[in-house]
Amino acid sequence: MLTVHHLGVSQSERIVWLCEELGIDYQLKRYDRRTDNRLAPPDYKALHPLGAAPVITDGDLVLAESGAVVDYLIHTHGGGRLAVPPGRTGYADYLYWFHFANGTLQPAMVRLMLLRRAEVPEGNPVRAATEERLALALRALAARLGASDYLAGPELTAADIMTVFSLSTMRNFLGFDLGPYPALAAYLKRIGARPGYRRAMAKADPQLPPLV
Amino acid sequence: MLTVHHLGVSQSERIVWLCEELGIDYQLKRYDRRTDNRLAPPDYKALHPLGAAPVITDGDLVLAESGAVVDYLIHTHGGGRLAVPPGRTGYADYLYWFHFANGTLQPAMVRLMLLRRAEVPEGNPVRAATEERLALALRALAARLGASDYLAGPELTAADIMTVFSLSTMRNFLGFDLGPYPALAAYLKRIGARPGYRRAMAKADPQLPPLV
Repeated sequence: MLTVHHLGVSQSERIVWLCEELGIDYQLKRYDRRTDNRLAPPDYKALHPLGAAPVITDGDLVLAESGAVVDYLIHTHGGGRLAVPPGRTGYADYLYWFHFANGTLQPAMVRLMLLRRAEVPEGNPVRAATEERLALALRALAARLGASDYLAGPELTAADIMTVFSLSTMRNFLGFDLGPYPALAAYLKRIGARPGYRRAMAKADPQLPPLV
Repeated sequence: MLTVHHLGVSQSERIVWLCEELGIDYQLKRYDRRTDNRLAPPDYKALHPLGAAPVITDGDLVLAESGAVVDYLIHTHGGGRLAVPPGRTGYADYLYWFHFANGTLQPAMVRLMLLRRAEVPEGNPVRAATEERLALALRALAARLGASDYLAGPELTAADIMTVFSLSTMRNFLGFDLGPYPALAAYLKRIGARPGYRRAMAKADPQLPPLV
């Protein structure tokens, strides 16, 4: 049996959403963050050597890392749906935005979060460069989503499932405003209207604020 | 014609290496970093909206982001070689380590580099947590490579091609020692003995120090 181990308010919301969009059978196991430091509780950390969300178990397999879990579920449980295969229209866009999510966008956000937590002041050149890099990533994403309903084309794919966490839950951590990016706000509205997304968030983190 | 735009001493060394291991036809275009700030020169930044390495051009396509470029080249120019397909032994390991490279390992290194550049002192709890997280990632990698010659099993795959940059060129930036990780040093020795890797580095960055 496939089990999705969901750490509340974390990247594993992607996996719950993917399972709902694919309509695959899974068991959801929820874990709350520690109240003292908001980190993962010991039983979540014990699931996998890296101790980070997401983690799934499927028979004897324990698998972590969002990109890996998404690819695995699509190809072993989802019949390849929500991926764009080689040669199909949108293939390169699919690959680009899929990998951009955790290779560029999410790391840029985490870097800014850390510099703030380390109390590096706003004028600091390292912080300024980090903010500029994040704004560049958001502008590129907004340009794409102004021209296309979803990242790989007219239909939702796993590239969207990889990306939305940064624009919703992670954005709430950072507290940044979508004002300069109306195309991102419109995209989140489209996402928030999807029954699969709504079912996923109702199960995963019903207490989170609405997407936009 | 496929062109690999290689920014010297950057993540695009992966793409040169991949092309050499796959034995595919490509044109290499090298760009030197600016001498004043070590950033990419304007003609590299102009290749793609994000302005970061790697970038390839293939006919009308301009593609960036390491994971996307590697997947694209394997499936459009390499006949699927160096990837592990669904159902094959090592599939989950392949996915995990492929995505771990730029989803966990490389971001952990960049975060440490930024905190140092922002002069966040060693005792700072944010810096300490960042160092601990990087050490955890390196220990996991060393445990895997103590048990297996390559990340997905006995043969080189694109998971290795994604990972080595962080352990070689990026490690030189950070200046960290492989002493505590003999399995990583042994792995780099195996990599450094590969004709494909040697050809790639001779073309891409012949001035770099040897791997170990």
